[in-house]
Amino acid sequence: MRENTQLEKAVKGDISPEMREVAAKEHLDPEFIRSEVAAGRIVIPANHTHTNLAPIGIGKSLTTKINANIGNSAMSSCPKKELAKLDVALRCGADTVMDLSTGENICEIRRSIVAASPAPVGTVPIYEALSLVEDPMLIDIELLLKVVEQQAKQGVDYMTIHAGLLREHVPLAMKRLMRIVSRGGAVTAKWMQHHQKENPFHENFDRLLEICQRHDVTLSLGDGLRPGCLADSSDDAQFAELQVIARLVRKCRDAGVQVMVEGPGHVPLDQIEMNMRKEDKLCDGAPFYILGPVVADCAPGYDHITSAIGAAMGAFHGASMLCYVTPREHLGLPDIEDVRQGVIAFKIAAHAADVALKRPHARDRDDAISRARMAFDWEAQFNFSLDPERAREIRAQSLQETQQQPLNDDKKSDHCTMCGPKYCSLKTSLEITE
Amino acid sequence: MRENTQLEKAVKGDISPEMREVAAKEHLDPEFIRSEVAAGRIVIPANHTHTNLAPIGIGKSLTTKINANIGNSAMSSCPKKELAKLDVALRCGADTVMDLSTGENICEIRRSIVAASPAPVGTVPIYEALSLVEDPMLIDIELLLKVVEQQAKQGVDYMTIHAGLLREHVPLAMKRLMRIVSRGGAVTAKWMQHHQKENPFHENFDRLLEICQRHDVTLSLGDGLRPGCLADSSDDAQFAELQVIARLVRKCRDAGVQVMVEGPGHVPLDQIEMNMRKEDKLCDGAPFYILGPVVADCAPGYDHITSAIGAAMGAFHGASMLCYVTPREHLGLPDIEDVRQGVIAFKIAAHAADVALKRPHARDRDDAISRARMAFDWEAQFNFSLDPERAREIRAQSLQETQQQPLNDDKKSDHCTMCGPKYCSLKTSLEITE
Repeated sequence: MRENTQLEKAVKGDISPEMREVAAKEHLDPEFIRSEVAAGRIVIPANHTHTNLAPIGIGKSLTTKINANIGNSAMSSCPKKELAKLDVALRCGADTVMDLSTGENICEIRRSIVAASPAPVGTVPIYEALSLVEDPMLIDIELLLKVVEQQAKQGVDYMTIHAGLLREHVPLAMKRLMRIVSRGGAVTAKWMQHHQKENPFHENFDRLLEICQRHDVTLSLGDGLRPGCLADSSDDAQFAELQVIARLVRKCRDAGVQVMVEGPGHVPLDQIEMNMRKEDKLCDGAPFYILGPVVADCAPGYDHITSAIGAAMGAFHGASMLCYVTPREHLGLPDIEDVRQGVIAFKIAAHAADVALKRPHARDRDDAISRARMAFDWEAQFNFSLDPERAREIRAQSLQETQQQPLNDDKKSDHCTMCGPKYCSLKTSLEITE
Repeated sequence: MRENTQLEKAVKGDISPEMREVAAKEHLDPEFIRSEVAAGRIVIPANHTHTNLAPIGIGKSLTTKINANIGNSAMSSCPKKELAKLDVALRCGADTVMDLSTGENICEIRRSIVAASPAPVGTVPIYEALSLVEDPMLIDIELLLKVVEQQAKQGVDYMTIHAGLLREHVPLAMKRLMRIVSRGGAVTAKWMQHHQKENPFHENFDRLLEICQRHDVTLSLGDGLRPGCLADSSDDAQFAELQVIARLVRKCRDAGVQVMVEGPGHVPLDQIEMNMRKEDKLCDGAPFYILGPVVADCAPGYDHITSAIGAAMGAFHGASMLCYVTPREHLGLPDIEDVRQGVIAFKIAAHAADVALKRPHARDRDDAISRARMAFDWEAQFNFSLDPERAREIRAQSLQETQQQPLNDDKKSDHCTMCGPKYCSLKTSLEITE
């Protein structure tokens, strides 16, 4: 049998071009990347059909990656807008994007996103399946696998599949303050109760794996029972599902299919480290892809911040990829400015963890901007910053308010409007003679 | 001798009205508050002259407090604007405010802030001293103490004094990438080198204590050598100053003066816990009042987020008060919207830590908003959120974009624009019959 997937190649001992590219980006040895891919601790989502892909690696020995969710809803957005969101997300530094469209033209939007994106593209196939039926209870495994296959053929690099949620877990979730907040999880649970049948993806997991192996689609095992509020975090429902997911991780690896695991959700600060360790141990080091986590429920409008706090802690304690949360979370579908705010907040979280974990060259950018600050070189400060446009804007606004010199004279002005020249600590400390 | 300060009263065994008020706010026993104040592990900044004060306690056994810096600079702002900033800061939940004015009308601005603020007001007296001399090198101890006394008489509740920075520390700071980024620290260092004399506040600490004891001004021992970038964090300069500060903490307590300790600055995630423990140990549990810390240097325009991450970690590991950082940090003087963004980001950090530390009733608000989410009660969601105005605004905007029903019909609409009705996980999971 030909080795189709990065995992199969790595197990065989081959270092693929994708592994070499990941090694170069991460300042690591290609053989190390191969061995981690072989062990399942790194995944390289790279569908054969996604020809313009610039591959990246996801794993706890690599820099922390971030994902931006885009896609329309039944109530909002159009295909053009989604490409504009893609553009902003990539420019601000998203490492992967998920197209979560649930409105019109799902297939067409996805096609154009895959075509335009050098970053790996992920989806949640059950969303498209839902759009194809009048009543969600009419979904069946043939429809689900048809959607998965069609998306795989289009070049989708990874897919969220809620295969770990079983019938026996549903009563555990019904006890919660917020029951089930995952869309795929809620529909699957309702479907199982309605039909008195087991989770169709769980029952037909081998057929799913066959498609994924053929196209090298990386599976992202979704946590349909992720907690939706602090009160529900780290409960029986969450961990019962994780146990099943851990078994499915092994099935994926045996089938040569790359796999990562999705994680919570809403988690208080004191439970984050425990959650990261638990996944790592149960799932034998499968990359953990976490949503936030949000560390407080009471800040709608600011959940990019609430979750950046949890995400930084999560990455510091071992998460490999962080799914962004935008300021519009819990309130509506993100617009372009929300995408920008979400991506930057999560770049900060990922970068803070990478610096703390002493990833190769992680602090170079910080040191460069600090040197530029000391030299009052504003242009360099902007250029080394995560969002140069925003930093420039704020500085220009501050100068205008105080009617200081125009920006074209600004390159070396030796103070800012925060302190003014007399109180500038940098200016003062440069005057100290030794 | 009459007991003038909360510390003296507590040591004598008296439970003051201020201690009772703090106990009620924190759901704790008044005698516990007294014993912690007596031990110096809680401070209650409450100048006798600040008559409209609603006292709060600061200490690691209490809810995490946040401070908002306001005040003008030589280049920007006017007295009216500072009162507007005070108003926004208090409305968004700042527990204390510092007036850091360095421009015109310093004395008048401070008077109006103290008069208008039920929250404790802090200052950095060396800023006003600097405004009174042509050349910073003309400052002397008589001027400094005169300013301190005048501010104490006006009702300032706590003052940042950089008394721990000694001449021998300056060469350590000169080795750094960013030398000295504290304004008070930089001027003090330059003054010591210029005059070849020791730190005037350190040399005349007893005279300072006498004023503070008389008015019950709480000292906040400033970290003039706080690191200004990740490269400089936790270095010899920082910890040499902290050793001196620890000695001064004991002098304060012996003199009956309440004291807290200021902390870094720029600190990578992996060093935050160590920094919190070190201060606690060296300074015998004196409340740690930290600035941020910023956990990455490369996000100007977003430093409220960079520092909220550090602040949440800091509070979780024992910091008692968090000094906010606004989006304009490193770029200019914050305006009113920056104050709002900074305060909310830090309320999130403080709250996340309080939930994680299981402070009494800390999670009530989160549970209430989660119940409101489950009931699709949008009004209740707004009312329990940290910034109801902002949450309302975003929801209204989302509804408008999708031309949904107007807001007055909104109280019970059973989905949002993120998912729409068909994909709403809450709606779906409420439909699951057991």
